[in-house]
Amino acid sequence: MAGSPRRAAGRRLQLPLLCLLLQGATAILFAAFVRYNPETDAALWHWGNHSHADNEFYFRYPSFQDVHAMVFVGFGFLMAFLQRYGFGSVGFTFLLAAFTLQWSTLIQGFLHSMHGGRIRVGVQSMVNADFCAGAVLISFGAVLGRTGPAQLLLMALLETVLFGINEFVLLSLLGVKDAGGSMTIHTFGAYFGLVLSRVLYRPQLEKSKHRQGSIYHSDLFAMIGTIFLWVFWPSFNSAPTVLGDGQHRTALNTYYSLTASTLGTFALSALVGERGRLDMVHIQNAALAGGVVVGTAGEMMLTPFGALAAGFLAGTVSTLGYKFFTPILEAKFKVQDTCGVHNLHGMPGVLGALLGVLVAGLATHEAYGEGLDSVFPLVAAGRRTATSQAIYQLFGLLVTLTFASVGGGLGGLLLKLPFLGSPADSQCYEDQVYWEVPGEQEEEAQDPLRAEEPDSRA
Amino acid sequence: MAGSPRRAAGRRLQLPLLCLLLQGATAILFAAFVRYNPETDAALWHWGNHSHADNEFYFRYPSFQDVHAMVFVGFGFLMAFLQRYGFGSVGFTFLLAAFTLQWSTLIQGFLHSMHGGRIRVGVQSMVNADFCAGAVLISFGAVLGRTGPAQLLLMALLETVLFGINEFVLLSLLGVKDAGGSMTIHTFGAYFGLVLSRVLYRPQLEKSKHRQGSIYHSDLFAMIGTIFLWVFWPSFNSAPTVLGDGQHRTALNTYYSLTASTLGTFALSALVGERGRLDMVHIQNAALAGGVVVGTAGEMMLTPFGALAAGFLAGTVSTLGYKFFTPILEAKFKVQDTCGVHNLHGMPGVLGALLGVLVAGLATHEAYGEGLDSVFPLVAAGRRTATSQAIYQLFGLLVTLTFASVGGGLGGLLLKLPFLGSPADSQCYEDQVYWEVPGEQEEEAQDPLRAEEPDSRA
Amino acid sequence: MAGSPRRAAGRRLQLPLLCLLLQGATAILFAAFVRYNPETDAALWHWGNHSHADNEFYFRYPSFQDVHAMVFVGFGFLMAFLQRYGFGSVGFTFLLAAFTLQWSTLIQGFLHSMHGGRIRVGVQSMVNADFCAGAVLISFGAVLGRTGPAQLLLMALLETVLFGINEFVLLSLLGVKDAGGSMTIHTFGAYFGLVLSRVLYRPQLEKSKHRQGSIYHSDLFAMIGTIFLWVFWPSFNSAPTVLGDGQHRTALNTYYSLTASTLGTFALSALVGERGRLDMVHIQNAALAGGVVVGTAGEMMLTPFGALAAGFLAGTVSTLGYKFFTPILEAKFKVQDTCGVHNLHGMPGVLGALLGVLVAGLATHEAYGEGLDSVFPLVAAGRRTATSQAIYQLFGLLVTLTFASVGGGLGGLLLKLPFLGSPADSQCYEDQVYWEVPGEQEEEAQDPLRAEEPDSRA
Repeated sequence: MAGSPRRAAGRRLQLPLLCLLLQGATAILFAAFVRYNPETDAALWHWGNHSHADNEFYFRYPSFQDVHAMVFVGFGFLMAFLQRYGFGSVGFTFLLAAFTLQWSTLIQGFLHSMHGGRIRVGVQSMVNADFCAGAVLISFGAVLGRTGPAQLLLMALLETVLFGINEFVLLSLLGVKDAGGSMTIHTFGAYFGLVLSRVLYRPQLEKSKHRQGSIYHSDLFAMIGTIFLWVFWPSFNSAPTVLGDGQHRTALNTYYSLTASTLGTFALSALVGERGRLDMVHIQNAALAGGVVVGTAGEMMLTPFGALAAGFLAGTVSTLGYKFFTPILEAKFKVQDTCGVHNLHGMPGVLGALLGVLVAGLATHEAYGEGLDSVFPLVAAGRRTATSQAIYQLFGLLVTLTFASVGGGLGGLLLKLPFLGSPADSQCYEDQVYWEVPGEQEEEAQDPLRAEEPDSRA
Repeated sequence: MAGSPRRAAGRRLQLPLLCLLLQGATAILFAAFVRYNPETDAALWHWGNHSHADNEFYFRYPSFQDVHAMVFVGFGFLMAFLQRYGFGSVGFTFLLAAFTLQWSTLIQGFLHSMHGGRIRVGVQSMVNADFCAGAVLISFGAVLGRTGPAQLLLMALLETVLFGINEFVLLSLLGVKDAGGSMTIHTFGAYFGLVLSRVLYRPQLEKSKHRQGSIYHSDLFAMIGTIFLWVFWPSFNSAPTVLGDGQHRTALNTYYSLTASTLGTFALSALVGERGRLDMVHIQNAALAGGVVVGTAGEMMLTPFGALAAGFLAGTVSTLGYKFFTPILEAKFKVQDTCGVHNLHGMPGVLGALLGVLVAGLATHEAYGEGLDSVFPLVAAGRRTATSQAIYQLFGLLVTLTFASVGGGLGGLLLKLPFLGSPADSQCYEDQVYWEVPGEQEEEAQDPLRAEEPDSRA
Repeated sequence: MAGSPRRAAGRRLQLPLLCLLLQGATAILFAAFVRYNPETDAALWHWGNHSHADNEFYFRYPSFQDVHAMVFVGFGFLMAFLQRYGFGSVGFTFLLAAFTLQWSTLIQGFLHSMHGGRIRVGVQSMVNADFCAGAVLISFGAVLGRTGPAQLLLMALLETVLFGINEFVLLSLLGVKDAGGSMTIHTFGAYFGLVLSRVLYRPQLEKSKHRQGSIYHSDLFAMIGTIFLWVFWPSFNSAPTVLGDGQHRTALNTYYSLTASTLGTFALSALVGERGRLDMVHIQNAALAGGVVVGTAGEMMLTPFGALAAGFLAGTVSTLGYKFFTPILEAKFKVQDTCGVHNLHGMPGVLGALLGVLVAGLATHEAYGEGLDSVFPLVAAGRRTATSQAIYQLFGLLVTLTFASVGGGLGGLLLKLPFLGSPADSQCYEDQVYWEVPGEQEEEAQDPLRAEEPDSRA
């Protein structure tokens, strides 16, 4: 049946039609709702008689550009470590993130920034949309190579909505601080993806085992992703914080935290490696955990020492996770996690949330001075104690885990819809299924999506 | 004759002598004419008693750096898709752009920014010079792999002059708006290169057909170029606009336009691909058309919806161009276009110019408020109506096409000068002709430039 | 003996223990000494009632990010040209630089920026720490592939201290100007590494000769490093200069200098190449010499012509160095120099120092106006003549050469400590010694550090 011409034609049209449908829908909603904000609108900006130097562009655009490079270059190439899935890693990152930027502008706009029935956009909304794309790409990492582009677009469609709601609940309703997204981006994206991966569990995946590793040059391409993420992460965490000391301190904390996670990762990787050898998987991923772990506390008065300690802890936990926990996750919990997002985003994200609980709970007027108002406005205004802020932070983590798990479960059911094409168990981690691959003998996969063997997922 | 020792020695000296000659000439002209401007000169800046925060450096340098990365990283790696021409793509990009930055400083300086007999330089002239390098690299893309470095330097020498004149006519004489260069950069560069390629037409090119495609890893190197171009394009279009809302709005419009061209490209690529498979050539190139198409209108009140619609149109047209029009261009019009610049820069550039006509024609005092003066100063001053501005914009497109075509024709004749080395028809798209290639059996090409067969071009 | 189990276990633990020890030590010192500065501390910043726009973050962070990318992306990939040492090049760059950022914060802090017994950190200290990492990576380039990670960490430990002292002597005691570090970074890093390499001289290195070259794709990875260094170098030299015209002029001078070194490099490479072919080694390295040579004079009134002339000279000297001097350095002086740092950093660094002597000596009140105070404060204050400033500059070069040579000698002795693992002569330039390499037959190197033959160094 899967090989019948009509089914094949239907699958062939799935991606184009879905892209056109989604693009058409977002375009209509843009026409109806999205407008320039007072910093991007010619009439509104000049009406205010501002100095051009006051435009928020000059305070946030350089950071935005770094974030933008992280999302497309960083995530894209980081996932290109697989020997036969470089096109899919970089290419589907490109597709998913491009769609998410549009869709998230709408969702976040409806939830956070409606003014007079209109969504007002500028550099802040660009940063926010890129952040949502980051979360979607984290989830993509969990199911990399085992899902088709149409499935992934539907995942992004759903995840963006839940991301927006979760973010709204945390930031707007609960008054939780999470500038760099330890909770809203990393924890949410990781557990959404892992639960979704659980629903899509493939018991016969060893049929694609031979393609699941890297080759020498694919590991170097992945290092492009790693290094760009590492270098620009200070901009990621600081992009949405309050201006002035807020951005400055957040960037500094992230910078130090990453150096410590790198040292921790090299130490642990050599320690647990066979004959003391370093493992590229650890270096490519766990060294980045220092950025994740200060996503919440980075804007707080964490202290430089605090940043080092947190980064080191995250790097070691993450490396140990790759070595010891990923196999258990698959064997015991039936969660296949291609990129190890549980180690890079899941555990460090939760640690980062808990670090936020701790540092918020320790906040004093003395340590923050007049700056308390910009970091913890509710505490400064006397509406909360530092301890109750800490409890709200903890509650934010629980809310995030709940949204992520329920959302991931729903997402998994959505992606199992039988008409959605998905690579056969023996065709996972293989670009040829969705891409014209140069110089390939094409016999192997006449119909890229045909079920070569009984498909275990349907 | 081509193999005679004297001729071989002459060819061997061609590139070094040309480099030295050009560098010597620009250095002398720099000594005579180029001076720091009031923002880079110690005495002039401090004489004015400015606050350092007012220095234009802080408003334009971050955007400049993104543009600079696009020119060298973006164009260089984008063209590295060929299996045996990575050194030439990245290396000749490096050479051509480095020369063009110097030469264009002079040409643009003579035409635009002479003050008291001196060319005054600073970050604006750096941006402008990089823009000219962009146009030269677009033309390079049309003849990639079929021309030698000495030929390419001569092309850059001529093209930079014509680029400067065309830009001067449009921006200074006609009062046309074209911040991101849909006309001056993309349309000009593409048609200059295509007409030049027409003059250099090689009927026997199938002798190098086997080297004309990509291999797996060369496609990934090309994606480095694509992604950096895509990510930084908002900075490209906004780098030279008016400060404040102008830069901000332009970046925002470009950001949205690119997301839509990406979705359009994926949709169309899968639709026209064999068995619904995606084609890397489309993803690497057509997804960028959204940046080209808002090069003129990006600074105007295009609206976010307008940006999406324009980007989507450009992405689909560009993809269809690669699929259906490139073969016709070669077969019917005898224009060989290695990188498909007609699809990425030519058609989207013309579309972008027409979009500028449309959006300029729709400009009202109501929509722009006091900002009208910075976007359409002649309209704001009452010296033109919006409609006449639109007509000037259209006229600018025609002027550009004329300059590009005549210039490309002249360029082609120049590059056919018989003493200029050029790879034989069977040696196109091959790095070994101009580069020491590691681990190569060197028998194949004893004299890299000898004519192995009757050369069809001389 | 080397193969005994206890020795093998000891070596296996060397890297992890050293990483943990160093991280522990820096963390304790951070806890004791490192604090936020008034621009990153919430209480201090808000106490001052500043406008957020005045925060130094907005003046230096974009440049810092470019520098940060250069250190990790640029140096890392530039050294990835070796066919079998990409993991080591990118990976050990990552490790060394991460450690150096922490350690240098402390060393530079103790020497330059103690306030009330505390080291105050912000974006300036981030730039300074990255600069020190640059020097360490230059030294790494001299011994690339012939040293293990534990050795390299010890090198960084020592070099960072000497770098800090040398910098302190030049900038604080002698009042020497060296914003972009022609002396403090390039000359120091190069000669430190070369003397160290001399001490570690391996007469039997031809046993690894077959791995010492590049392959096609490793050369393209190296070009990623080259191009990012080239593009961002204007930010490197300008990152620590005075604000306003100082940063602006420095970036402009560097931009022009690099274009000229690129043209000079292409000219000379083709001139001295076999049959006129270009050599990737030259293009990857010598084209960057234009950035090195204006490291001192870039912030001065060098004039655009001066920048071109200096860059051209540096590019040609550097290319000739690779062609003719590197073999002599090994044969006559027993200095093995994997990346040719003598050609890229050593000679151009010395030239840059001498250029600084010249331009400082020519400084006049007329040329600098009120800006003299920010470029040469001691001359402006009448405490020095321009000539005496020039003499101090020259003296700074001699001090740097002395510190570098003595330090490199000490470093070499340190790295020869017999218990430190080091690859055997036949295992140099080979990733498998320290890394899990995918898809390798593992028989070749059962114990990665065993001495396969009598080791010539111990």
